[in-house]
Amino acid sequence: MAGPDGLSLESVRNSLIRQEDTIIFSLIERSRYPICPLLYDDKSSLIADASGSLLESIVKGTEATQAKFGRYQSPEEHPFFPENLPESLVPPRSSPNVLHPAAASININKMIWDMYTNQLLQLFASEGDAEDYACIGVCDLQCLQALSRRIHYGKFVAEVKFRDAPEDYTQAIRAQDRDALMKLLTFENVEEMVKKRVAKKAKTFGQEVTLSEDEYNGKYKVDPAIVSRLYEEWVMPLTKHVQVEYLLRRLD
Amino acid sequence: MAGPDGLSLESVRNSLIRQEDTIIFSLIERSRYPICPLLYDDKSSLIADASGSLLESIVKGTEATQAKFGRYQSPEEHPFFPENLPESLVPPRSSPNVLHPAAASININKMIWDMYTNQLLQLFASEGDAEDYACIGVCDLQCLQALSRRIHYGKFVAEVKFRDAPEDYTQAIRAQDRDALMKLLTFENVEEMVKKRVAKKAKTFGQEVTLSEDEYNGKYKVDPAIVSRLYEEWVMPLTKHVQVEYLLRRLD
Repeated sequence: MAGPDGLSLESVRNSLIRQEDTIIFSLIERSRYPICPLLYDDKSSLIADASGSLLESIVKGTEATQAKFGRYQSPEEHPFFPENLPESLVPPRSSPNVLHPAAASININKMIWDMYTNQLLQLFASEGDAEDYACIGVCDLQCLQALSRRIHYGKFVAEVKFRDAPEDYTQAIRAQDRDALMKLLTFENVEEMVKKRVAKKAKTFGQEVTLSEDEYNGKYKVDPAIVSRLYEEWVMPLTKHVQVEYLLRRLD
Repeated sequence: MAGPDGLSLESVRNSLIRQEDTIIFSLIERSRYPICPLLYDDKSSLIADASGSLLESIVKGTEATQAKFGRYQSPEEHPFFPENLPESLVPPRSSPNVLHPAAASININKMIWDMYTNQLLQLFASEGDAEDYACIGVCDLQCLQALSRRIHYGKFVAEVKFRDAPEDYTQAIRAQDRDALMKLLTFENVEEMVKKRVAKKAKTFGQEVTLSEDEYNGKYKVDPAIVSRLYEEWVMPLTKHVQVEYLLRRLD
């Protein structure tokens, strides 16, 4: 049942499912290019006087533009470089914020950046260099933003679960008991289903579609097992991490 | 057979096919949001002292960042607002430019912008407003860039066709005969096949993937007939327009 502010278990679930498509599309798009290690090199030799990696510069520049047009006014969006972002030029959002105000203090994008650039990328992009730095950096940013949105959506998941059964959570929150909260939030059968579904989506979206009627048995653009693993090792644990962080502050 | 610079009919064809996926992914992503007319309003009431639409400001800001990192050094990429773009900070590309130098003077992004914002968008996005201006603008830019890359890829298509049969084209080029060139470039059976394939891709990528084994018979995120029509009415004719423009200058 939706609350008066429109938040409901169903709307949250639908959003999570829809976001799977976005994540998989963005991985498939990034997989067009090789890894291109120069983009992630902290002492980039490509640009004189650069501080940080080329990707960092691309993301900072793009986030600045998006901040001006209100991206980070949305409680669903979290910048990777929140320092020195320009003010928004568009009016504040009129839609109600359904989250507890403490939500604003939770941003685990550093972990997501580290996971993506140091682990995930190597699993699905081929080795090699390319000179399309801007295009590759944009693809990286798409992946990072899609993963960040999905993982931080844990705030909404936690809020809707809390509203659904506040008495179940209150004791663990008052005791600031992370383990108890994590246990309350974990549903292994649901997680298994999600892993299967994202693998199936990776097969469906990553196949070479031809006019042939035969069943597809070629290669997939991104290995479905990697997408399953991404959810198992990172997306679902990090989402639960966000949920726990949020719930710990939910009664502040 | 590939030329010494790596250009071949097969590499061009593979790129065109791959770009279909990118275009359809970007349309599906944009379809998450309603049209949001405020983004396209030339006298945007959202930002004081704005010149042009909100989308224009978002695209200009993003293109400036991407220009700094060399996006427009690639002969595949064309800015929507080429005026006042910052210089690239990354070294010039080392890969050979396979196109005739006259290619650089062809940019029909104004036509693509007009087609997208005034016609295509209304066909696949639902009516209504939303406050996610930055996110929607980014989706628009993804669509615009994917369409622009695909349509301007006509330069490569024309180059490979010219190299394959220079004698067929030379007479029409010397006579600056657009109609004869258009005739040489048009293969109706190929165009029919492309229209069918992109519709099939829209079905495949735009379905709701579930763990059910049943054949999907729900709604698609973007109507496959619209994607077919996009190719028939705009992508293929505009690509041929680029091809003709390129060939007219090919012997300069």
